[in-house]
Amino acid sequence: MRLEHIGIAVADLTQSEALLQRLLGRGSYKRETVAEQSVTTSFFTAGDGAAKLELVAPEGHAGPVQKYLDKRGPGIHHLAFEVDDIVAEMQRLREDGFELLQDQPSEGADNKLVCFLHPKSTGGVLVEICQSRPT
Amino acid sequence: MRLEHIGIAVADLTQSEALLQRLLGRGSYKRETVAEQSVTTSFFTAGDGAAKLELVAPEGHAGPVQKYLDKRGPGIHHLAFEVDDIVAEMQRLREDGFELLQDQPSEGADNKLVCFLHPKSTGGVLVEICQSRPT
Repeated sequence: MRLEHIGIAVADLTQSEALLQRLLGRGSYKRETVAEQSVTTSFFTAGDGAAKLELVAPEGHAGPVQKYLDKRGPGIHHLAFEVDDIVAEMQRLREDGFELLQDQPSEGADNKLVCFLHPKSTGGVLVEICQSRPT
Repeated sequence: MRLEHIGIAVADLTQSEALLQRLLGRGSYKRETVAEQSVTTSFFTAGDGAAKLELVAPEGHAGPVQKYLDKRGPGIHHLAFEVDDIVAEMQRLREDGFELLQDQPSEGADNKLVCFLHPKSTGGVLVEICQSRPT
């Protein structure tokens, strides 16, 4: 498992992109809306070989990121680890007692299949596992 | 600025080390107590070239991590970015309107000088900047 990106929940994507650009000294390299998660994402590199930073802003008022913002406010939202075989990894984690938030992988940003683990089974950390899809 | 590590606040370091080992398939490679921050830390690699994961557990009941746990519970605590010259970077950030939590760098884990930025100036994300000290 390799750390692939860190998700940061934000309310206003444009404002947050500008803030992160001031902090890091570089701008977002792409935006992508993920309808299935009701979010728009914006990606930043975080150094050679380092995990990316993914700003995640809600689209509409019904999705999980909007709920997170309502409850906790903006901040670091999840850690995503890349795996080679997401279905096999989901089975391994389930058998090891981790609680998965979905039975099947879903479509994520950045051409990936993703699955989230419940934070109550991971010490309060929302963990995503992801697998790149063939392009 | 390069993402150096992700800090995760935990209540019980030994339990959390075991949980992260089950998740990642590898164990902690070192523990270190940082008296100045009233914490003990435990480090995990997160893949070639990726940022490290740093579990941060409070030592005693007075430090900032204990306060964080009391308020928010365990979870992702901070993002740390490595810089070449922490003093120059602190000045740049201060002049750009970021609120620093300290006037001078302090001693962090892993042989580093560190400085934290107030989350209210960074979109709810506790940001650390750090500089490796000559060994």
